[in-house]
Amino acid sequence: MSASQRLANADGLITELASIVGAGNCLSSQSETASYASDGRGLFAGSVLAVVKPATTEEVAAAVSACARAGHPVVPHGGNTGLCGGTAPGRHRRDVVVSLERMNRVRKLDIANDTITVEAGMILRNVQAAAAEADRYFPLSLNAEGSCQIGGNIATNAGGNAVLRYGNTRELVLGLEVVLADGSVFSDLRGLRKNNSGYDLKQLFIGSEGTLGIVTAATLRLFPARRQIETALLTLASLDDVVALYLDARQHAQEFLSAFELTPRIGLTMATQHVPDVVDPFAEPHPYYVLLELSSSQTRVGLKDILLELLERNLDAGRITDGVVAGSLRDAQSFWRIREGCVEAQRIAGPSYKHDVSVPISAIPGFINSTRATLELAYPSATIVAFGHVGDGNIHFNVCAGDMDREDFAVEQHAIEELVFDAVLSRGGSFSAEHGIGLLKRDALLRHTAPAGIALMHALKTALDPACRLNPGKVLRSPAAPNRKQDHASWSERT
Amino acid sequence: MSASQRLANADGLITELASIVGAGNCLSSQSETASYASDGRGLFAGSVLAVVKPATTEEVAAAVSACARAGHPVVPHGGNTGLCGGTAPGRHRRDVVVSLERMNRVRKLDIANDTITVEAGMILRNVQAAAAEADRYFPLSLNAEGSCQIGGNIATNAGGNAVLRYGNTRELVLGLEVVLADGSVFSDLRGLRKNNSGYDLKQLFIGSEGTLGIVTAATLRLFPARRQIETALLTLASLDDVVALYLDARQHAQEFLSAFELTPRIGLTMATQHVPDVVDPFAEPHPYYVLLELSSSQTRVGLKDILLELLERNLDAGRITDGVVAGSLRDAQSFWRIREGCVEAQRIAGPSYKHDVSVPISAIPGFINSTRATLELAYPSATIVAFGHVGDGNIHFNVCAGDMDREDFAVEQHAIEELVFDAVLSRGGSFSAEHGIGLLKRDALLRHTAPAGIALMHALKTALDPACRLNPGKVLRSPAAPNRKQDHASWSERT
Repeated sequence: MSASQRLANADGLITELASIVGAGNCLSSQSETASYASDGRGLFAGSVLAVVKPATTEEVAAAVSACARAGHPVVPHGGNTGLCGGTAPGRHRRDVVVSLERMNRVRKLDIANDTITVEAGMILRNVQAAAAEADRYFPLSLNAEGSCQIGGNIATNAGGNAVLRYGNTRELVLGLEVVLADGSVFSDLRGLRKNNSGYDLKQLFIGSEGTLGIVTAATLRLFPARRQIETALLTLASLDDVVALYLDARQHAQEFLSAFELTPRIGLTMATQHVPDVVDPFAEPHPYYVLLELSSSQTRVGLKDILLELLERNLDAGRITDGVVAGSLRDAQSFWRIREGCVEAQRIAGPSYKHDVSVPISAIPGFINSTRATLELAYPSATIVAFGHVGDGNIHFNVCAGDMDREDFAVEQHAIEELVFDAVLSRGGSFSAEHGIGLLKRDALLRHTAPAGIALMHALKTALDPACRLNPGKVLRSPAAPNRKQDHASWSERT
Repeated sequence: MSASQRLANADGLITELASIVGAGNCLSSQSETASYASDGRGLFAGSVLAVVKPATTEEVAAAVSACARAGHPVVPHGGNTGLCGGTAPGRHRRDVVVSLERMNRVRKLDIANDTITVEAGMILRNVQAAAAEADRYFPLSLNAEGSCQIGGNIATNAGGNAVLRYGNTRELVLGLEVVLADGSVFSDLRGLRKNNSGYDLKQLFIGSEGTLGIVTAATLRLFPARRQIETALLTLASLDDVVALYLDARQHAQEFLSAFELTPRIGLTMATQHVPDVVDPFAEPHPYYVLLELSSSQTRVGLKDILLELLERNLDAGRITDGVVAGSLRDAQSFWRIREGCVEAQRIAGPSYKHDVSVPISAIPGFINSTRATLELAYPSATIVAFGHVGDGNIHFNVCAGDMDREDFAVEQHAIEELVFDAVLSRGGSFSAEHGIGLLKRDALLRHTAPAGIALMHALKTALDPACRLNPGKVLRSPAAPNRKQDHASWSERT
């Protein structure tokens, strides 16, 4: 095909897409599409042929089908809060971005069944609010909840702060509606808790980052509203104590334990420096801080007594050195602000390499201590902030430039990553716990996955998207897809 | 290939298999293989070329690889307690049964990580016992637990009595080791609670009934031991009251609610008639009985108070008409014997058609009442026993021959099934909640699944087992597999 033919075909596709979603919902000028041309972190930038904003599943299906016939890739777009570049289009101005933002309704709330069926573009916080209005609790919760969309949460199998008790997004999904590569629709929104009628197809799409299908709606599990919440901020002298405290809390408060979040001293220091409303409630500095939350839907349970007994026992055992128990919702929020502020402060403080890893819980102290020590020797001016979800074995091991020269820091990215990943993998861990792969970790996936696993992933991709049109190049490198010859170099990395 | 060539090839394969697993673990005479030639219920019978009993994953892999090269189908075999014929070999004496029975060890117990890694042939009750020895709880529990194997539980995504609180088998699996169709091994037994590094491949194999791979080992989640258990047997006048009680229990005792099992009067009557140790603790008959269990790992929680408050409120509201609370473990066991006896009695009482269905919880009363009424009109001599896991929406809707002529009953199988399935599907339910598909429900799967779903299942099967060698014909009809032209008629149905 000549260049002019290609151009004419692209114009024809834009016209067809506009007729599907309405001219006002099909953007194609550079200025209109600019904000869709890179991932949310700005790590990868491409160029977009068009952005369509369908209002219904039928419109998504028709748009995907039109792109398939025209041979154009489709990039699904949610709240764009992913951290691995999963929403970045290619740079050849061929990709059609399908933004789910207009599909943001609750389709059905079934109180007796404890399920809610929502469209993919619904903001996570609005899903939480719809559950709360019905006196129910939807537990998925993460820093981006004010702007991330539930479809993106599903596509990335989002984790967050409540995994300890309620599981990852995968465990919260009872049914999906998905537009497939050819524009056909797979739908099962029955919200059944037991259904062994054939392969469980929804599992394919959860966590596949839009490469096997585009989630358009989901039926989610709801839980009873929480009637009691007890939150404590505890100080500890070592990571061994942190893990010992976690194990004790799990054994003695398992039904109620709903958060166990670790922040190291450096994280609190950075948070109080950079984020105005973060306050350190302790007079003295401490090496580690744990936010521990117990919650219950039962009003009869003496939750505070259970918490106090747990704290007392661990104070006596010398695992906890100090602590404060929230006396009000405001107190609890101020404890959470430390945990959130730790993340925000790093964003403000300058460049950093984020490693979202997991290890078996028993391996957490050894992993953090030895990796930090090695890095501090090699990069004495850098700042290591290792924090996160202890109960999930999920540590955000971030290396911040600190006082390091920015160019020196940029050169070391690969070496730092290798060092962290090696430490994780040698302990039977994962180099990507909750953030996924996108573009950013494709190479790591290839390097750190056994051939049988990579072969299975490619077999799935080929089975579901043989022409490689759905979010091509994300998770897996694409086999030569027609009209698209792109590899890593096709995305200009900004950082 | 001539018949004599085929025979020589088969002999060669048997010799090769014997060299892999040892002659004593490779059975090929009719008498030795007879017990492997049909499914556990005796619904389907075939003929077996050989039965191999590997001791290691490497031996499984080598056996599967040898079969693949020789073009012979492989049928994985666990405890053979499945109810849908998933273990029945074909009838042409070509299938090689791979029995996991010798792979029955605990590979690793990681207390700090709350995980246990076991081989596929381990009996479920032994997995439970290994957890209990470590002061932990493995919640999967079902009637066949004394003989079913954990590999089979995983292959069928077994449900059972604790799904309400702990989820199906799928939710209990953190990692799998699987032998693939070509004899290669996919393994991820890290036991991580968060791992988004590429597609979650283990999900493919859970519930796929040995058609996509053979599970050889698994890493499972453990929970804190239960320190308190409160069990009550309650009587109710209507199914509306049963569901109302469930909703109240869920709202007010969610963290503790670990069983909510329904037995109708006819189930209790049959149990006391046919099963010696089943006792009706009530002086008068009641339409419905609910076994309600609360449990906690916390000793400080006033679990009995929570139970008594729940019962009092529901007695006052007129939902419960009577009830007994277990005062001892023996009492609790006698309540569970009613629920188990209901199943055993049906087996003893004569032929029955079992429908393992699920509907949204709110639809349970309407589904049971109207379907029972219709069937009672059409078959006044039959006996309807509808019981099961109310909290999962999972009803075992069984139609027993009762006083009906056996031949008349046999003729009506299809009509009865259609009637029950239509009632389920019109209410947004599933025709197979926890028992799977096997051979028995293949036609139903085809009939009651949208084309996009069936197409996806075939795409998966083709991607993972292109020559259709793994448990061929189960779940999905096989496309013409080399050397194997079989359809439904290839299995002689005994009932």
